[in-house]
Amino acid sequence: MPMKLVIGNKNYSSWSMRPWVLAKGLGIPFEEVKLRFDFNAGSPFYQALAKHTPAGKVPVLVEDDGFAVWDTLAITEYLAERHPEAGVWPADARQRARARSLCAEMHSGFGQLRSLCPMNIEAALQAKGAELLASEPGLGKDLARISELLQGALAASRGPFLFGTFCAADAFYAPVAMRIRSYGLPVPPVVGAYLDRLASAPGVREWITDALAEHDFIADDEPYRTAPA
Amino acid sequence: MPMKLVIGNKNYSSWSMRPWVLAKGLGIPFEEVKLRFDFNAGSPFYQALAKHTPAGKVPVLVEDDGFAVWDTLAITEYLAERHPEAGVWPADARQRARARSLCAEMHSGFGQLRSLCPMNIEAALQAKGAELLASEPGLGKDLARISELLQGALAASRGPFLFGTFCAADAFYAPVAMRIRSYGLPVPPVVGAYLDRLASAPGVREWITDALAEHDFIADDEPYRTAPA
Repeated sequence: MPMKLVIGNKNYSSWSMRPWVLAKGLGIPFEEVKLRFDFNAGSPFYQALAKHTPAGKVPVLVEDDGFAVWDTLAITEYLAERHPEAGVWPADARQRARARSLCAEMHSGFGQLRSLCPMNIEAALQAKGAELLASEPGLGKDLARISELLQGALAASRGPFLFGTFCAADAFYAPVAMRIRSYGLPVPPVVGAYLDRLASAPGVREWITDALAEHDFIADDEPYRTAPA
Repeated sequence: MPMKLVIGNKNYSSWSMRPWVLAKGLGIPFEEVKLRFDFNAGSPFYQALAKHTPAGKVPVLVEDDGFAVWDTLAITEYLAERHPEAGVWPADARQRARARSLCAEMHSGFGQLRSLCPMNIEAALQAKGAELLASEPGLGKDLARISELLQGALAASRGPFLFGTFCAADAFYAPVAMRIRSYGLPVPPVVGAYLDRLASAPGVREWITDALAEHDFIADDEPYRTAPA
């Protein structure tokens, strides 16, 4: 049996999206286990999750015998070691180091974008995005840094993605692309064109399709919309 | 010439501490470039840093020809690739995956401990620690999770450190050890004993000695003390 990847709601779970689109995009086989978000203590979500991981968060990768790898970066390195032929990281050592810098900067940074603009693939929040951009200087700062680093990688790339072909760095910025789109945040044209290519990449496109089919309103992830009647 | 590792103040810079104690503890040669913290826009700190890295943060590893690797996790993987014999990660694949999970969970998590208890090696803030623990439930929750994951690793370890001998996972928790000590935060005895061993490990001990010799009060990193007269 292939490994399991335990994830949350596809419309909302930006962390789950990263390893899922990476594995799917690179043809690494896995079985998806989706747990519906419910952040109340002792909820079915937390009960099911506790069976897979002590960390209490999605995503988690689980092997046949129960061995669990959690956190997106650790899962990514595990996939790279298990599937050295798949191209999780660029083949060139320095490009690989740079790709890891981009992933790690995302992993611990961009706090304003992440807290003010939670991923919500189905939502149209462009007016809210404009309002947030006007009132929150930190959001513009995050956006400027993201544009700068994506532009730098694209200028050096020999292919349509950040380091040539689709790799972990693209997977890590896929949720960023979703936020920029949902909230209508402005980026330079070269970055916008890349984000469009990224949204059309095999694994990413499938995730978006699934997210749009979910129709599951989770109030804790909806600071800006009201529940449908 | 060996690579450079650009860091901030040793008393305060928890992120700088990780790759420094890792490289030092494993005998990987590097040249230290210390930049005094000054978080005002356009400060000498930011001017010097901009020469080394576009990310605007310490630490950054810089090769002879200027190639820069930033963010602690990317630096760690780069050291592991450049020095495969040094033992940056455990040799066993599953132990390596688990060590990466611990590092990555630290890298993106424990927000309450990190924001409420900034690293301050020379400070004695035990009264403040008790006060914070009583008023901030999130701090206790972070501490409980840290104790749980360290206990889990120690129970499975065949040596004095988290995965036998000193590796990246220990380096990533070294600043946590400093916070727990400065703020007098309670941990189970087995965790306390490990944190003491960690504080005495070769690279860690040297960093602490340097930090205590700094005597440099940076107001932006001092929410709880007043500047010496």
